[in-house]
Amino acid sequence: IANMGSGFDIMGLAIDEAADIIELTSNTSCTIEIKDIVGANLSKNINDNIVGKVIQSTQKKLGITQGVDVKLTKCIVPGSGLGSSAASAVGAVYAYNELVNGGLSKEQMLELALDGEELATGARHADNIAPCLYGGITLAQHKDKIHVTNLPLPTDIRIVVVYPQIQIKTADARAVLPTEVLLKDAIAQWSQVAGLVAGLCLNDHKAIARSMQDVLIVPHRSKLIPDYTHLEQSLQQAGVLGCSISGSGPSIFALCDQNANTQEIEHLMKSHFQSKNINTQSWVTSISTQGVKTIQ
Amino acid sequence: IANMGSGFDIMGLAIDEAADIIELTSNTSCTIEIKDIVGANLSKNINDNIVGKVIQSTQKKLGITQGVDVKLTKCIVPGSGLGSSAASAVGAVYAYNELVNGGLSKEQMLELALDGEELATGARHADNIAPCLYGGITLAQHKDKIHVTNLPLPTDIRIVVVYPQIQIKTADARAVLPTEVLLKDAIAQWSQVAGLVAGLCLNDHKAIARSMQDVLIVPHRSKLIPDYTHLEQSLQQAGVLGCSISGSGPSIFALCDQNANTQEIEHLMKSHFQSKNINTQSWVTSISTQGVKTIQ
Repeated sequence: IANMGSGFDIMGLAIDEAADIIELTSNTSCTIEIKDIVGANLSKNINDNIVGKVIQSTQKKLGITQGVDVKLTKCIVPGSGLGSSAASAVGAVYAYNELVNGGLSKEQMLELALDGEELATGARHADNIAPCLYGGITLAQHKDKIHVTNLPLPTDIRIVVVYPQIQIKTADARAVLPTEVLLKDAIAQWSQVAGLVAGLCLNDHKAIARSMQDVLIVPHRSKLIPDYTHLEQSLQQAGVLGCSISGSGPSIFALCDQNANTQEIEHLMKSHFQSKNINTQSWVTSISTQGVKTIQ
Repeated sequence: IANMGSGFDIMGLAIDEAADIIELTSNTSCTIEIKDIVGANLSKNINDNIVGKVIQSTQKKLGITQGVDVKLTKCIVPGSGLGSSAASAVGAVYAYNELVNGGLSKEQMLELALDGEELATGARHADNIAPCLYGGITLAQHKDKIHVTNLPLPTDIRIVVVYPQIQIKTADARAVLPTEVLLKDAIAQWSQVAGLVAGLCLNDHKAIARSMQDVLIVPHRSKLIPDYTHLEQSLQQAGVLGCSISGSGPSIFALCDQNANTQEIEHLMKSHFQSKNINTQSWVTSISTQGVKTIQ
């Protein structure tokens, strides 16, 4: 979940579900063969596919040519706003590194995963890559290099996510944003971001609640989501700590503490879209403290 | 020290020195008499003087008319960028509340002190008021009301401050700022603020060091300070954690950890201005954990 409300382009949060699954099997042909893709209609050409691209970068970095057969199971739908490309990119570098025992650090994996993100979005943004790789809640500062800070996790937090199946391309979600903003609005936004970071670090749920609202980006992007403002109000009334658009949307997430009934929140989110004949996928989940991991 | 680099308009830090001294003595005339002002040429008219104004507001809030004779010792020069008006405003409400045992909370004192800040600057900004009142490093979010968060203090921090005696009016320092900024620059700025807050909360000196630089405001305001960029570079080379303009300037501060020689830093700052025939006042000091306090 990139942005986390007010942290546009810099913050992100890893959730326990959904997750892409990358299965690699060594082959003897020194080639990367994408054998099977489940759950999405993606190219199997290794130069057009994020997993193929990232494995190539990883091979180059490690200076090895070990070939692999790939099975990619997409549980995160491309275009859902849930970091689909980042999940595959991080999964790819992590899996290949595990397979060949490459000894890459997370910092090195970050750069390699960004090759996949760049293929998908045209930009080397780490707001989704960082949480996928490090887990938890991350702050990614783009400076001379990308500095990732894991922020402390607030206690007793559940996350409800809904993906309404409407299509918003990241490019379109970027196009609705203004090039210039009022300085006073920018100040209001960084007051929010600062409060959110402080709230997370100090486990201050009230500070988180008052600081999640994005005042610069969401007012534009929310126009791409049917009746967003109404849903946001309903969620606030239902007692969520905060809610916002995940990444460039259309998925929406809510941070909930023990005061909120997560089943009710999920129902509210789903029925909002279903009443408009929009299909949904939804999750009641937790912050993934680990991010990418090996599964059997 | 308002702003603390990247935290324009929202962050502030209280230092152990300099400080204004407010001495109140009960009188029997039910009037506020400003008897003596040391260190600055300010009006003794209680409607034009911050201390007079704030004591009036405090009387009104408490519903009492206890008169006082006031002696005000200004150790923080008005127009220095060191929160001179905030120091007097906070001192006034605190002192009067102590004298009459008014039982005001800090939250109540904040609102009353803002009456003084408003008289001085025309705006109810709490970026200087909050650290004077609460001590330490504060984040002041202006929302439905002003929410002040005390951020954890990083360890082993010394602060060097220089006040070059050139005049910059807060109004002029505001006038050089643009009304609109590029969204990408605003994002860079809130990436900095988020990193600074995280660095403080996590006692991560490296994060503080990379996140203090203001990319939106200081480039404009620094033009009002002779050869600022050169001084900044020299200070970085001398090993400060970070440095910036204090408030609207012209004072400059540097955050130093054990790796920096604070005497050398102070000398560097002073000689920079003295070589341009500008007199200076300087301090090597610490973060005041307490803020305003009673002295004997």
